[in-house]
Formats: sequence, structure tokens, C-alpha cells
Amino acid sequence: MITVALAKGALLKDSVARFAAAGLDFAGLLEPGNRQLMVPSACGQARALLVRNADVPVYVAYGQAQLGVVGYDVIREHQLPVAQLLDLGFGGCRMSVAVKASSGYRRASDLPAHCRVASKFTGCAQAFFDALDLPVELIHLAGSVELGPITGMSEAIVDLVATGRTLEENGLIAIEDLFHSTARLVGHPLALRLDDGPLQAIVDRIALVATPRGS
Amino acid sequence: MITVALAKGALLKDSVARFAAAGLDFAGLLEPGNRQLMVPSACGQARALLVRNADVPVYVAYGQAQLGVVGYDVIREHQLPVAQLLDLGFGGCRMSVAVKASSGYRRASDLPAHCRVASKFTGCAQAFFDALDLPVELIHLAGSVELGPITGMSEAIVDLVATGRTLEENGLIAIEDLFHSTARLVGHPLALRLDDGPLQAIVDRIALVATPRGS
Repeated sequence: MITVALAKGALLKDSVARFAAAGLDFAGLLEPGNRQLMVPSACGQARALLVRNADVPVYVAYGQAQLGVVGYDVIREHQLPVAQLLDLGFGGCRMSVAVKASSGYRRASDLPAHCRVASKFTGCAQAFFDALDLPVELIHLAGSVELGPITGMSEAIVDLVATGRTLEENGLIAIEDLFHSTARLVGHPLALRLDDGPLQAIVDRIALVATPRGS
Repeated sequence: MITVALAKGALLKDSVARFAAAGLDFAGLLEPGNRQLMVPSACGQARALLVRNADVPVYVAYGQAQLGVVGYDVIREHQLPVAQLLDLGFGGCRMSVAVKASSGYRRASDLPAHCRVASKFTGCAQAFFDALDLPVELIHLAGSVELGPITGMSEAIVDLVATGRTLEENGLIAIEDLFHSTARLVGHPLALRLDDGPLQAIVDRIALVATPRGS
């Protein structure tokens, strides 16, 4: 039985579509009334786990799922031992440093040393500011990071930016990108190594319909 | 200007009611279409920040809010320097160890050494198993922790249990409680020390309407 970990939320619809193209129908996950976290495919040959974005690499790293779909931002933040197999092209967004539009900062290196930076992605932010050789105090928040600069708690934030609408509504502007993120197909390394065909067949069929960025 | 940090979700309605009894009307937060994260009180003398549960102690610890309402579970997990002022009595739940009902485990000490335990509250879980002198491998999950035992990833979970319905639906049972949790009024220690009356007046008025557990 092949198990696939899929993230709730913005990536789910496209993830289900990619697996459908590979012959695994998880449309049951998309039904509005669905409360089930473990859903068999229509063919009965596979099942999907419906989990939080951050938990997809956990289920794949522990081998509870052989495959998973998750944003590159989560892979970068959590650094778990999963194999990146395909760039699926959807769910595009940028991990950006943003500040108050009214501040004078226009590049990350303009920020004062030891300033405060709020983020849900403190791992990514730490690596970025370390590479810049700029010591900052990171404040981990679970949500609504834009409140950091608004309340004066932090000079800057590091957050995912898709349309930029949330930043604009809160008087913030993105001044520098850490990286671009898209949905990725990931796999359990040992399951892939021991696979005698079926996993690779799914990966190959998804690769045919995947539309990586820039293609 | 007094700023109050309130948690989105299950605690919000009761939190707003307690502050209303103390003369601060934040009913605007409860309007269904509200998208604002910072809402002034009806009297204009105070404002509320609407943030994630885990972020309430952050805003209070950094002094961006002088007061906040948050579950005791979050205070225990995040260990930030905030002053606990009142047990507000609502939002009651237990932090519990749960296992598959079909397993033979009936106490936490029945669990095998080096078993896996999944939790959103790995800090609380680590302290509990350390005190029990039982080494376990903790797996941090962001949500739907009940999938841990269902998929076979973990022998047990540590999670908040309110009605027990989620456990029951997933074939799990709670076997031991770490602690009981209720909503707490917390404050910024320095703001309380420097307060010349207004903060203490709010705390006193909320204390009159607070109904701590067991009273």
C-alpha cells in the first residue's frame, strides 16, 4: 500500500490533480464535508494522509508516507531527511524580508545590527542573516507576522509573499527575497531505494504533467 | 494606551466578555467580517491585538501588550517571562497522554523505553517523561496529532483533550494527565511594576468576575 502525505490548504487542490493524472484518485479529500485524515484512493491501491503543511516532511521522513507534496519553504525551514523528486510548479511564492513602507530600509543590509526580526520561519531567517553577517534578534511568531512592525515589536519580518496584498494592507513592503518557493514532490529515501517499480512509476507519471517554474 | 493581546479561536468570546466586565469593550473583534488584527476599544482608551494562541505570551513578554489572555498550556510550553495574574476559569481542558485503545498501555509508565511520542507540545511532553525517568523519542507535529498512533508513527501522543470526542473518533484513549489547563490573565512584569493604577484597576475588575476552577 502506497501512502501519500498531502498538505491541507492552498496546495491541496493542485496536489490531488497531479496524483489523479498519475492514476491515483484522492478526490475524496476535496469534498467539503470531509473530516477524514486518512482517505483511500478510488482504486484502493493507495491512501492519502491529510496533514498540516509543516507535518508533510515528518510523515515522509519517518517513512509513514512514501511520497508527499509540500512547499519548498517548509523543506528549507525544517531540514528533515526527505528526497526532493520534482518541482511541481504550483503554489509559487517568495520568502521575503519586509519592512514598514515608511521606514528608510530598502535592502536587508540597511537594517541596523541587533534589530528585531519576527518570522514563522526563524530557521530560514537565521541562515539568511548569518550569510549577510548581520546579527539580528529573531522573534518566533505562529501567525500574523505583519503585526511585528505595526506594533513596533520588530523592525522587519521574514515571511511568505504570494500576491503582496497582506503586506500592502498593513503598510509594509518587501525589500529582499530569500528564495522562491513552489510545491515539491518529496519521497522517503529508503522507500525509493527499495522500490521495485510502483513508486518510480508514480513519480514518472507526475513528472509528465508537472510544470516547473520557468518551463 | 493600554494594549491587550487576545488569542483567536476558542478563548476569544469569553476573553472579550471578561474585559467588557472591566469596562473595556472589544466586541468589534467578534464581528464575523472582522479582518483587523488591532482593534480599539469602544472607549478609545485601549486596544486589542488579535493573535494566535502561541503568540500571546510573545507580545506580552516583549511589552507590546501589557495584558493578555492565553491558555495555561501555552504558558507551560513556551516558558516566556510573563506574570500570571488570574485563573479565568474558562477554556478548561487537560494535557493528556493518549494511546490506541487497542494497545495494552494504561499508564504512561507502561510505555516502552525509547518509544515514539507525537505532540504539538514537545516541551511539556519532554518535561513529563523526564520526570518519569522514561526516555522517549519526541516527534513534533503541527496538527492532527491523533494520526501519529493511527499511522503507526508513534506509540503515544501528548495533546489537549477537551471533550475527548476527537480521541474517541480515532480509536484512542487518554491514559494519564500532565496537567489541567484554563485561560489565564497574564501581564508584562515591568509594566505591572511601573503601573500607577490603571492596569491594576483592570486586573481587579476582571478578578471580580473571574470564576477560577473549583470555586
